[in-house]
Amino acid sequence: MPRTLRIDIAYDGTDFAGWQRQSNGIAVQELIENALSAACGTERIVVDGASRTDAGVHARRQVASATLETRLDDETLCAAMNARLPDSVRVRAVQTVADGFHARFWSTGKRYIYRLECSAIRDPFDLRYAAWLRRPLDVDAMRSAARHLRGRHDFAAFATSGSPRATTVRTIRHIHILRRGNKYLLGFQGDAFLYNQVRAMVGTLLLVGQHRLSPHDVVRILKSKDRRLAGPTAPAQGLILARVLVGDRPSSRRGKSEEDVGDE
Amino acid sequence: MPRTLRIDIAYDGTDFAGWQRQSNGIAVQELIENALSAACGTERIVVDGASRTDAGVHARRQVASATLETRLDDETLCAAMNARLPDSVRVRAVQTVADGFHARFWSTGKRYIYRLECSAIRDPFDLRYAAWLRRPLDVDAMRSAARHLRGRHDFAAFATSGSPRATTVRTIRHIHILRRGNKYLLGFQGDAFLYNQVRAMVGTLLLVGQHRLSPHDVVRILKSKDRRLAGPTAPAQGLILARVLVGDRPSSRRGKSEEDVGDE
Repeated sequence: MPRTLRIDIAYDGTDFAGWQRQSNGIAVQELIENALSAACGTERIVVDGASRTDAGVHARRQVASATLETRLDDETLCAAMNARLPDSVRVRAVQTVADGFHARFWSTGKRYIYRLECSAIRDPFDLRYAAWLRRPLDVDAMRSAARHLRGRHDFAAFATSGSPRATTVRTIRHIHILRRGNKYLLGFQGDAFLYNQVRAMVGTLLLVGQHRLSPHDVVRILKSKDRRLAGPTAPAQGLILARVLVGDRPSSRRGKSEEDVGDE
Repeated sequence: MPRTLRIDIAYDGTDFAGWQRQSNGIAVQELIENALSAACGTERIVVDGASRTDAGVHARRQVASATLETRLDDETLCAAMNARLPDSVRVRAVQTVADGFHARFWSTGKRYIYRLECSAIRDPFDLRYAAWLRRPLDVDAMRSAARHLRGRHDFAAFATSGSPRATTVRTIRHIHILRRGNKYLLGFQGDAFLYNQVRAMVGTLLLVGQHRLSPHDVVRILKSKDRRLAGPTAPAQGLILARVLVGDRPSSRRGKSEEDVGDE
C-alpha cells in the first residue's frame, strides 16, 4: 500500500544550487530524493517541496511530500535519510499523512526571514547567514514603506520576469522589521510569494532605509508593475525560509495550477 | 618614531591552522602580519597574539600587539588591514598604546566560551560553531564538577603534554554553564590556560554530564596530574576566545618567561 509522507527539512543553502533538481550544481531536492530512495531501496522517488528556494537561500523548516511504498516506520525513515545526507541538510521529521497531501498545493502560507548586518566591520561569524551593508538603516522609514506592501496587491514590480504564473497578485499578511545593535531582521509572512519577491522587497526596503527612496515611493513602484523601478534583488545568503504553513486540504487559493510555481 | 599598537581581531577559525604562524596551513597571525606589513609598505612586522588559539578555534576578540613605524593613523590602518584580509578575519580596532605594551605579557586573563548542541538531529546552522552530542546532558552534575575546577590548582591532568612551561598551576576565576533548549554554553574565565586546557576540561565535564564520571571524580583527576584520567579533548569548532583581559602593565604573574607559551 503506498503511503504519503510529509517531510520537514532544514538546510544551510550556501553550498547548494537551490531546492529544485537541475543540471547545474547539487540541489537539495536531489539529495532528499536520493536519500529517501536509498533508505527505501526503491527506484527514484519524487519529493515535492512547498517552496522552491533559490541557490544560497537557507531553510529552517521546508516542507516536502512524497508518496511511496516502504515497510520502514516514520522515525526509521528519518534516521535513515539523515545517515545519507550531508550535515548541512537535515530531515527534522517524517510523518505519514492523509493520502493526497502535497506540500506545495496544501501550503497556505510561508514565513521568510531576511537577516542583515549594518556595520563598518563585518561580523566574521555571520558571513553565511546575513547580507552586509556598511551603514545603519532608518528602520522607521522602512516600517512605513512596509505598510504599503502589506495586503493584497499585484506584485509584478517585485517579481523576476520570465517565470510563468497565472497571476502576480499575492497577499502579504505581515512584515516586521527588528533591529538589535548592528543586526537587522526583516520578517515576511504571506499566502505565497512570486519568484524572488522577498529579495526584491528587501532590496527596495533597503533603498528606503538608506533614504534613496521615500516610503511612499513604494506605492508608485507597486502601481507601475515595472520590476526596474523596485530595488535590486538582495543577496541570497540573508534569506531563510523560516516556516511553511500547511492546511488540512489543498489550498483553494492556489488550486492545482501547475503554472503557479514561481515561489521564492 | 616607532609606535606600539594594540590590535583587536575576530576570526572564524574553521579554515585556519590556528593563530600561530607555522609551516602547515595558513595561520591567522601570518594573515595579520602580512596585512599590516602591506598596509605600512614595510618589511615583515611581527604581531604577537595574547592567545595561541589552535586550528579550528574561533576568536570574538583576540588581542595582539606590534611595534612599527608608519604615518598612517589607527583608523586608516584598521581599514587598510581589513581591505587585505579575508572576510573570515576582521580587525575590530587598532589603537596606539604605551610603548612596551605586549599583548601576551600584559594579558591578565582570558574568557573562553564553548558551544555545544545536544539533539537527535543536528542544527545545520551551527556546524561551524558548536560541537554536537546526541543526548542531553545533566547540567547540575556538570556545575557540581565545575566547582572543583574553580580556583588555583595544578592543572597538569588537563594539559596536553609536550608543550614546555614553567608550571602547570593556573587560576580559574569563573566557570558558568547555561542551557537554552538543545544548546549549551560553557564559559571559562581564568588568568591563563595551559595548552588545550579548556577543551580537556570541557571533555571531562561532558563525561560528568553523561554520568560516565561523577562530579567528585574531578578532584581525583586534578590530584592525579595524569592527562589520561581526564576526558578527551573536545572538538575545536565549539571553542571561542571571547575576550582577552588586558592590564595597564606587564602581568607579574606571568613575567617575561618565554617558556610560558602554552596557552590554548
